[in-house]
Amino acid sequence: MADERALVAALTRITPADAAAGAAARTALDAKTKPRESLGRLEELACRIASVRGFPVEPLVVTAVLAAADHGVAARRVSAYPSAVTREMLVNIARGGAAASVLAGTLGVELVVVDAGVAQRVDVLGVRRLGIALGTADMTVGPALTRAEAHAAVAAGIDLAGELDADVVALAELGIGNTTAAAAVTAAVLGAEARAVCGAGTGVDAAGLARKVAAVEQALAVNRPDPDDPVGVLAAVGGLEIAFLAGVVLGAAGSRRIVLLDGFVTGAAALAAVRLAPAAADTMVAAHLSPEPGHRLVLAELRLEPLLDLGLRLGEGTGAILAVPLLRSAVAVLREMATFAEAGVTDAGR
Amino acid sequence: MADERALVAALTRITPADAAAGAAARTALDAKTKPRESLGRLEELACRIASVRGFPVEPLVVTAVLAAADHGVAARRVSAYPSAVTREMLVNIARGGAAASVLAGTLGVELVVVDAGVAQRVDVLGVRRLGIALGTADMTVGPALTRAEAHAAVAAGIDLAGELDADVVALAELGIGNTTAAAAVTAAVLGAEARAVCGAGTGVDAAGLARKVAAVEQALAVNRPDPDDPVGVLAAVGGLEIAFLAGVVLGAAGSRRIVLLDGFVTGAAALAAVRLAPAAADTMVAAHLSPEPGHRLVLAELRLEPLLDLGLRLGEGTGAILAVPLLRSAVAVLREMATFAEAGVTDAGR
Repeated sequence: MADERALVAALTRITPADAAAGAAARTALDAKTKPRESLGRLEELACRIASVRGFPVEPLVVTAVLAAADHGVAARRVSAYPSAVTREMLVNIARGGAAASVLAGTLGVELVVVDAGVAQRVDVLGVRRLGIALGTADMTVGPALTRAEAHAAVAAGIDLAGELDADVVALAELGIGNTTAAAAVTAAVLGAEARAVCGAGTGVDAAGLARKVAAVEQALAVNRPDPDDPVGVLAAVGGLEIAFLAGVVLGAAGSRRIVLLDGFVTGAAALAAVRLAPAAADTMVAAHLSPEPGHRLVLAELRLEPLLDLGLRLGEGTGAILAVPLLRSAVAVLREMATFAEAGVTDAGR
Repeated sequence: MADERALVAALTRITPADAAAGAAARTALDAKTKPRESLGRLEELACRIASVRGFPVEPLVVTAVLAAADHGVAARRVSAYPSAVTREMLVNIARGGAAASVLAGTLGVELVVVDAGVAQRVDVLGVRRLGIALGTADMTVGPALTRAEAHAAVAAGIDLAGELDADVVALAELGIGNTTAAAAVTAAVLGAEARAVCGAGTGVDAAGLARKVAAVEQALAVNRPDPDDPVGVLAAVGGLEIAFLAGVVLGAAGSRRIVLLDGFVTGAAALAAVRLAPAAADTMVAAHLSPEPGHRLVLAELRLEPLLDLGLRLGEGTGAILAVPLLRSAVAVLREMATFAEAGVTDAGR
């Protein structure tokens, strides 16, 4: 009940973007020493950031929240990797050896690592543990989580977002089998076919992909999640990291932070969050386009254009982290470029 | 004659990429804790960097060479801006107020600013001056440059590249009218139609675009540049910054530095350089796709896939500078990620 109240409170804090701040950023950009709109998507990004963070914009502090969890559906051999890899990779991330750790260090992003429900206990310094459940149940035979567990994970995400001292919250995830859960959440919310939302994930073969499509179909048939009940969808066919990240989205949106999406799994979390609070979409930036076919559907629903298209299919927030310099560059242009008047440059575009 | 000898010497130093170093990078990447090739284009980039810089790869020092010059063809009203803006913007860049200055500062790129032939004298600290000519002549009535001037600009670029202490040389340009010159160079080298290579540049209107197409057609008809004589093409319809940057490409390629291309104008310089030394293409990375229609043709000819597609049409090397964090990230993955063996992670992809 406390978790449900926390959700209701979080939803009431989410308000639409500040169009006036976005317009002020546009006016400021148009006075800078460059042809109007000649920095293309970077200028749109600057305006969106201002509409969330206000104008003038401060330099961006960026935190990536990386949530890991296991998935009962992995027993259906929907992934190229065994479930044990979730724990192994979480340890690798915490110790600094994974792609997410290296990119975060290179690009100046703080990484907050959360065990949202890994099956095997992780005892490594710097990993926060939710302690809700040791992974989900197999969604092809019943609900992945109880409703109370899903609520607890969402509430934990809302809480964590409240603790962060960041202008941008990048979403990151890890979990063997979690593109299957993301596919089921997307299919349930959007009413899409299983085969339209299933892809190779981190690299399953054709037979594995067929098992994945079958698992999603079966999970939807067995659980019949109600698309108008996002928490119910997260419980029926979601995952602990997906529900937790949906909570992070809601908490971050409620405190007017930029929510930087990574690929398909974080997109499914964002989709569930937006069904709970449509205005949360105003705070989102899509970092990259994943090769997962469901990702395009999610981004279209969220009306987001990805910044990067690099064929990334690793997860861990790698796409989100790689897009951070573009966000920082957009803010730098807004803050630091001279105006035509300041620089004494002829403004032919006026 | 000295300039021609400098060119010949530079060409002999350019050798194909080191395929063995590229393969060593691929082997190293395949041992890292991630599914094979799951970092997509970032992994291709790491291999290309290794094939130029050798393996193992050191962290990248990046210098952007920004060359500015004026164009006689600007008198044909092919740009939205008057020629005076070239000088004004060069001063703005040197003083730190322009987009290139701000992005270079934000992303840790050294900016070397060169007056390759601006019509009005620029006296600002930190701008190098070539002193070859005060801009080109109007190419619609005769050659833009003498052959000796074109050679001098190319030789100056080769010289400057030799001075740089950088792993990556990013190309950057400024010059009112220079997308018209780039269009003429591209059309001459590739045998393309003027209308296939002309676009709005930094923002000319439909009538201006029609004048631009007509100017390119006339310049090609009047000068009849020989596509098999790249220096002749640069003299007939090029520009001082384009010829200089072609020299920078040749000098950088000869000392095995990564040549990071920006948009259409730097692409035309690269195209001329590759016609002089085909192996120079091995050292190139395309930072972004410009909306200029000729840019696609140039990249296809150079067999390069751009990393970014952000609708940038500013020039100044802004696209190249924005891509630098991707190059640094590719190197960080190669240098810093743990292997499966080091991290004790199960390698299902083996």
